[in-house]
Amino acid sequence: MSDLAAAKPAPTAYQYPDFSKPPFARAPEARFEPLPADGVLPEGFFSTSNLPTYINLNGRWAMPARPRMDCVVVRRGAELETIEPRRLKRGELVAMGEAEDGSQGIVVYAEGFLGGSHGANEFRFMSTEVSRERPVNYEELARRLVEEKRSGGYLLWVVGPALVHSRARADFEWFIANGFVQAVLVGNAVAVHDIEAAIFGTTLGMTSTGQPSQGGHGLHMRAINQVRAAGSIECAVQSGLVKSGIMHALVTRGIPFVLAGSIRDDGPLPGVLNDTLEAQDAMREYTVQATGAIFIATALHAIAVGNMLPAFHTRYGPPAPLMTICVDQTEFVVNKLKDRGTHQAYGVVTNAQDFMHVLRFYVERWAPDSA
Amino acid sequence: MSDLAAAKPAPTAYQYPDFSKPPFARAPEARFEPLPADGVLPEGFFSTSNLPTYINLNGRWAMPARPRMDCVVVRRGAELETIEPRRLKRGELVAMGEAEDGSQGIVVYAEGFLGGSHGANEFRFMSTEVSRERPVNYEELARRLVEEKRSGGYLLWVVGPALVHSRARADFEWFIANGFVQAVLVGNAVAVHDIEAAIFGTTLGMTSTGQPSQGGHGLHMRAINQVRAAGSIECAVQSGLVKSGIMHALVTRGIPFVLAGSIRDDGPLPGVLNDTLEAQDAMREYTVQATGAIFIATALHAIAVGNMLPAFHTRYGPPAPLMTICVDQTEFVVNKLKDRGTHQAYGVVTNAQDFMHVLRFYVERWAPDSA
Amino acid sequence: MSDLAAAKPAPTAYQYPDFSKPPFARAPEARFEPLPADGVLPEGFFSTSNLPTYINLNGRWAMPARPRMDCVVVRRGAELETIEPRRLKRGELVAMGEAEDGSQGIVVYAEGFLGGSHGANEFRFMSTEVSRERPVNYEELARRLVEEKRSGGYLLWVVGPALVHSRARADFEWFIANGFVQAVLVGNAVAVHDIEAAIFGTTLGMTSTGQPSQGGHGLHMRAINQVRAAGSIECAVQSGLVKSGIMHALVTRGIPFVLAGSIRDDGPLPGVLNDTLEAQDAMREYTVQATGAIFIATALHAIAVGNMLPAFHTRYGPPAPLMTICVDQTEFVVNKLKDRGTHQAYGVVTNAQDFMHVLRFYVERWAPDSA
Amino acid sequence: MSDLAAAKPAPTAYQYPDFSKPPFARAPEARFEPLPADGVLPEGFFSTSNLPTYINLNGRWAMPARPRMDCVVVRRGAELETIEPRRLKRGELVAMGEAEDGSQGIVVYAEGFLGGSHGANEFRFMSTEVSRERPVNYEELARRLVEEKRSGGYLLWVVGPALVHSRARADFEWFIANGFVQAVLVGNAVAVHDIEAAIFGTTLGMTSTGQPSQGGHGLHMRAINQVRAAGSIECAVQSGLVKSGIMHALVTRGIPFVLAGSIRDDGPLPGVLNDTLEAQDAMREYTVQATGAIFIATALHAIAVGNMLPAFHTRYGPPAPLMTICVDQTEFVVNKLKDRGTHQAYGVVTNAQDFMHVLRFYVERWAPDSA
Repeated sequence: MSDLAAAKPAPTAYQYPDFSKPPFARAPEARFEPLPADGVLPEGFFSTSNLPTYINLNGRWAMPARPRMDCVVVRRGAELETIEPRRLKRGELVAMGEAEDGSQGIVVYAEGFLGGSHGANEFRFMSTEVSRERPVNYEELARRLVEEKRSGGYLLWVVGPALVHSRARADFEWFIANGFVQAVLVGNAVAVHDIEAAIFGTTLGMTSTGQPSQGGHGLHMRAINQVRAAGSIECAVQSGLVKSGIMHALVTRGIPFVLAGSIRDDGPLPGVLNDTLEAQDAMREYTVQATGAIFIATALHAIAVGNMLPAFHTRYGPPAPLMTICVDQTEFVVNKLKDRGTHQAYGVVTNAQDFMHVLRFYVERWAPDSA
Repeated sequence: MSDLAAAKPAPTAYQYPDFSKPPFARAPEARFEPLPADGVLPEGFFSTSNLPTYINLNGRWAMPARPRMDCVVVRRGAELETIEPRRLKRGELVAMGEAEDGSQGIVVYAEGFLGGSHGANEFRFMSTEVSRERPVNYEELARRLVEEKRSGGYLLWVVGPALVHSRARADFEWFIANGFVQAVLVGNAVAVHDIEAAIFGTTLGMTSTGQPSQGGHGLHMRAINQVRAAGSIECAVQSGLVKSGIMHALVTRGIPFVLAGSIRDDGPLPGVLNDTLEAQDAMREYTVQATGAIFIATALHAIAVGNMLPAFHTRYGPPAPLMTICVDQTEFVVNKLKDRGTHQAYGVVTNAQDFMHVLRFYVERWAPDSA
Repeated sequence: MSDLAAAKPAPTAYQYPDFSKPPFARAPEARFEPLPADGVLPEGFFSTSNLPTYINLNGRWAMPARPRMDCVVVRRGAELETIEPRRLKRGELVAMGEAEDGSQGIVVYAEGFLGGSHGANEFRFMSTEVSRERPVNYEELARRLVEEKRSGGYLLWVVGPALVHSRARADFEWFIANGFVQAVLVGNAVAVHDIEAAIFGTTLGMTSTGQPSQGGHGLHMRAINQVRAAGSIECAVQSGLVKSGIMHALVTRGIPFVLAGSIRDDGPLPGVLNDTLEAQDAMREYTVQATGAIFIATALHAIAVGNMLPAFHTRYGPPAPLMTICVDQTEFVVNKLKDRGTHQAYGVVTNAQDFMHVLRFYVERWAPDSA
Repeated sequence: MSDLAAAKPAPTAYQYPDFSKPPFARAPEARFEPLPADGVLPEGFFSTSNLPTYINLNGRWAMPARPRMDCVVVRRGAELETIEPRRLKRGELVAMGEAEDGSQGIVVYAEGFLGGSHGANEFRFMSTEVSRERPVNYEELARRLVEEKRSGGYLLWVVGPALVHSRARADFEWFIANGFVQAVLVGNAVAVHDIEAAIFGTTLGMTSTGQPSQGGHGLHMRAINQVRAAGSIECAVQSGLVKSGIMHALVTRGIPFVLAGSIRDDGPLPGVLNDTLEAQDAMREYTVQATGAIFIATALHAIAVGNMLPAFHTRYGPPAPLMTICVDQTEFVVNKLKDRGTHQAYGVVTNAQDFMHVLRFYVERWAPDSA
């Protein structure tokens, strides 16, 4: 139906349904009951949708006048009309029932309107898969992470710079320290911001409370330069130059990571794979092991890793779904990831800082022994 | 699959397929061909997806190692591996065929991964319905508008203030003047900005090139006051106070409109229905006549009108889809409209100014007699 | 500079700076130092921006060739060039210093580029006020809420339906129960969803884990009907029909609320003010008392209340800023609120569920006696 | 003011203004005039803002009660109150004047509220620089493009895949063919989609009207493979394999382009620079020549090129602003580009398809000799 071309009005194309066949044939007559008070409906009223609706009245199928959703069907003599409840008076008769399949004398006949495979009782609200209006099931997310950890799963984390700017570094460190991270696939920028934060307390010159700092625009260049002088990120950690943060946690705990280069990079830091094919090959050695993947606030890396990631894994036997969580500020990145084939992604529409914070809170509650 | 809970790995829940039944039973063996040159595949190669894939090799079904999408399946002796084409050399053997249903010895077995009703050949890209990345079919939109006009259809237009701020007023006037608008359902703000533009050349004090104007923050209040002094919008048009714009076009051509009040209103202008139930009742007299509806850059009014609008009309006989076009800057408003039950909405993700401009251009080209 | 018209190249309009005046006059020569190793800069190097930059070399001001940001200025004889550090070898000479005002022989001359009031040391990153990439200072938010409570402040809460859909109801109840809420200004939909959740456990038929329910599309109509049958929301609470949620908390604690009507409303619930001017007048009795306001996931109500809200309050004496926090999934709503005059709004770009959860967590930690 | 920490209420920090000094000292008394009719104000009324406002009444400065924006100040005896015009009756007295600097007896005293550099007459709406609600000045954009062409400017175009998906290929070809494009900096994906469209009529398997095609998910791999078999994009054009599109236009007209590799690439196509540092170096040879740059629907490439691009050029003499236009569906990408230092970017918030279409339309109208 959302295909505009298919919605073209072709007078000859649309036909009335065949009332001699199911769901119409042998359906009972519809039942009507009076309003107990002005603007108050009898319990069990039929609530309308915006789809073609037929009502069995005295053995004939009639379509109520003035159709719309969220109303009731009022019977006035032989006339049926769709009306807002607030406009009705005590004693007026409204159609009753919740079934839309004819079993209570009412058929919602979606044929030709919702695609071939739809039937009755299909009209519903809140059906968009990825939406900021859907609740995020953090309990389930936390339970899954703890299960993966306990069963020896392999969780890939793929994150973007906003996670570092928004100061979710400490929460990410906690997940690394507690065994929820088996590999990290990121770009140069994540490491640069993380190390700038470790050395200078800023990211691109912005403090942890969002204020600018004096001479701030050069700080990431100075951070890169100090690591280049140290020789490597590992050396910068060992020498004490970098004392905290994501890279520090990864190096000190021996968690593998890939720093993939991009044309946007400053520096780059030592260890960044500037050849994108070499970076792909390095990344894939981790994607083939994954039993789960968590993408946070990154379009390029999420799509790149999604491209490599099977929708399933066979670590425990037959193919089982590979848990793929995609967190982004807007629905667009999640849907783009799906549009590039990673249909299994479960979308969480929120910001990186809050996601990390709330997820950690739930994991700590679920598995207090983690901390 | 995007239901996280459903994606829980339950070791006992997943089983290998039954290879004694279709699509596996009686399928031929897969065919392999050599690469004609390093990194160049034979025409007709099998392109992988991220779903579980089985290949009939020597009468046994095998799952290639290291699965991922956008690759090929390479045979090295009895081993099958999923590999990027760029990594292959001349003479290496890759699986051939486009069918995923076993008819060429390859089965893409999505069961349990894409929901119950999915089969082979279902993996695809770009399946999100509403996306800024999808082409807008303006030819079809223009053709539909011209058809509605010629066949005596009834088009509702529901627009938000951004249409006026972005200076698509002249294009809207053109659609009104040329018979493509049968009723307009808007709020106080659209009329206020339109009349401020008519009197002062600004909207909320911003000029048509986006610059601020001196004393600009009071101009909409002065515009409202002048219309209140005139007594009505109609009087303001007749007296020459308002010489151009949307309200001018509607009044001078006798096109009906409803100005529905909201708690956000300044003024309000004379004629605004401040009682929201009275406004709903007034709006519904137009929604019951509609054969098409166009929503542009408004969440509140689109959802309110969508709520009243059937998914079909019966103007030409049996129920035919009611063309519903929803234009917004982001996918969210279109999806929210669908989530409130207006599933038939065709989403156009763009801004109001450009939509009006391009649509007019196509309509003019399609029906040059309109101008 | 982001005014396109102002950026027009008018050959005669642009002039070289007057080097005989400050910041050029009497500035020292720039200092250069050699790279200690290939691709490693001397500490204290000058990090470039994209603005016109002049360097005092041998008493003459020269503009380095090939300007760009995030690079260094290399001196090769009398030539100065802007080059990426990675391209430089041990011993090459780069300009030193952090000052951009001439005091170290380097002038970043932004005149005509960043507007009239800008000077040196102004180039910086991360200057956008409202961005998902900025950290949210929850400590400060929590501290402010606790201070307002302790000092007898008056906090208005204005929320949209997404807060209820996303199941932040329990967190909102907590804030109400603990004295952080002095008045609530919302629409019919928030109350409808909240009461549907209280009676049926769903919102618009969606369960708290995001699943559809059987017959779900009628549940909000049944919830509304039961409250209409009860006579009022207060009666529905007292009778035990509504046992939890936002409305329950407000009614049982005697916190005032305004339910403002809109054209989108189903029902409406008893107590909703359908006349928008009457609703404005009711709302304003609370805005004039406010010392703080929190807007969450609502455009219409945030702008309506923002329109009524002074940027300051005088509760404690001279005008002090009125804390105004605007939480939304995208930057757009916050910026639109500012564009409608509520410039003082502090934007938090996240979703309603997480915001409420994290804010509660911080408030509980800050003021453990609250719980 | 949008710094939350700065907005902390510190009772001792806020002081009443010094009424003995300007703008208060020697200001005249405010003037009041009666309403000519119920709800109708006298022309020239003072329209309020939400900032602290003082009115000189009988030689004393008073702050009207119940402040808010978009209202008037009513005098009832010695009392001043801020009231909505609709609530006033004929004959009531309201303050007059547009000046906020005391010259008409009214002072809007923003000190401490809008930052240090603000004064009177600063309150305004619609001040956000980048917004979908601002009109796009296509006349000016078109004029600038034509001027650059005529004066021998050097225009860089940097575009993302959405331009190809949304079928703006033909419009881009037109700009290339007509001399508005001096260099193109893109990624592998743009070339892949463009060539898939040239060979198969699809992009990622989606047709030009947005429909899926049979076997569509493999078509981009087949397109890449055919170009790899041909040896290069240039060979694919010369052999007739690629007969239309962006790459065809660039190759046949000899316009230089850089295809920069990324970790997200399939293939890649021959000619893609997989080494990101090599790609940066290649790109920079074009950025140093640019007099203008146009970024469309790309975050990675826009930020990468923005990073290399000076805010000015010296092609015609002294530093003149380098026209930088950034087109994206949301404000976020434009603001992110600014946050990475490209402050000069002029944001156009729309989709790629419409932007190209409307811009071409205006350029054709402006310079009909172009076509």
